[in-house]
Amino acid sequence: MRALGVDPGLTRTGWALVAIDGGRYRLLDAGVIAPRSPLGTNDLPGRLADGFDQITAVLEAGQPDLVALEDIFTTPRFPKAALAMAHLRGVLCLAVAKSGVPLLALTATTVKQRLTGNGHASKEQVQRMVFGLCDVSGVRVPSDLSDAIGLAIAGLHQVRVSALTGGSRR
Amino acid sequence: MRALGVDPGLTRTGWALVAIDGGRYRLLDAGVIAPRSPLGTNDLPGRLADGFDQITAVLEAGQPDLVALEDIFTTPRFPKAALAMAHLRGVLCLAVAKSGVPLLALTATTVKQRLTGNGHASKEQVQRMVFGLCDVSGVRVPSDLSDAIGLAIAGLHQVRVSALTGGSRR
Repeated sequence: MRALGVDPGLTRTGWALVAIDGGRYRLLDAGVIAPRSPLGTNDLPGRLADGFDQITAVLEAGQPDLVALEDIFTTPRFPKAALAMAHLRGVLCLAVAKSGVPLLALTATTVKQRLTGNGHASKEQVQRMVFGLCDVSGVRVPSDLSDAIGLAIAGLHQVRVSALTGGSRR
Repeated sequence: MRALGVDPGLTRTGWALVAIDGGRYRLLDAGVIAPRSPLGTNDLPGRLADGFDQITAVLEAGQPDLVALEDIFTTPRFPKAALAMAHLRGVLCLAVAKSGVPLLALTATTVKQRLTGNGHASKEQVQRMVFGLCDVSGVRVPSDLSDAIGLAIAGLHQVRVSALTGGSRR
């Protein structure tokens, strides 16, 4: 079973394809989706189309069994950025829906909780767990992709627990 | 020249196709996009896919020269609804980008200003102007589609003014 973890961002959306095999996580591929037109050029539709096309290509190449996408929340401090981010996230959700792959929305807190047992773990603690749990040898991993790997691991973990306990939460 | 006005909503997205011909606006068609799966069923990807497919069909059937889409803002009171709405709006923007039709984002205030000269006009004042400016005979118009018609008129108006003054703002 393989999961695609997707960590959406306005300038860079990280993704990581992780397989679970015999209880061990292995990174198969990872990368970054970045729109061609830079932020601030006022070409939101073009940026969204870039994001849609690129995640669609990743889905087709990676053939994941599930997608774990980070959930977002507004904060009163960044409503405008959160709105722009939600536009992008809508397009990512659409690409997943079109691919037919089940989508799991996970908050950053849930991912931290699953990986470290502490929903408020530091970025360093999460990174240590990600690279401890997941064999990344053979794949060049930009350091900021650990969140995407963490999402994929947490997604696979949830599906496994769900299968073991007979639950239907995917 | 014809414009498609699109008034996004989580349960109903109104649309109106308006032509301008000899200085007179005429409603060609209007309708509502509504996702099959109801709100609260937790199937956001499915709802987004429905919205994308339905607006794509409207764009293909209507062949507009521009799309006027209502812009949204967060308010501290409804951050969650605004986020969900932004997901949908992202998907609508994507469909317009894929169709190649120029997209104009207009705030409700701008539409009111263009139609009535007052950005804080009441809903009734706006409706009166919409149905005064636009020949809607021959098309059955649900009353809540006046915003979509207003968006189309305001979009056509902006392009006309832009053409007359030699501006490039579309």
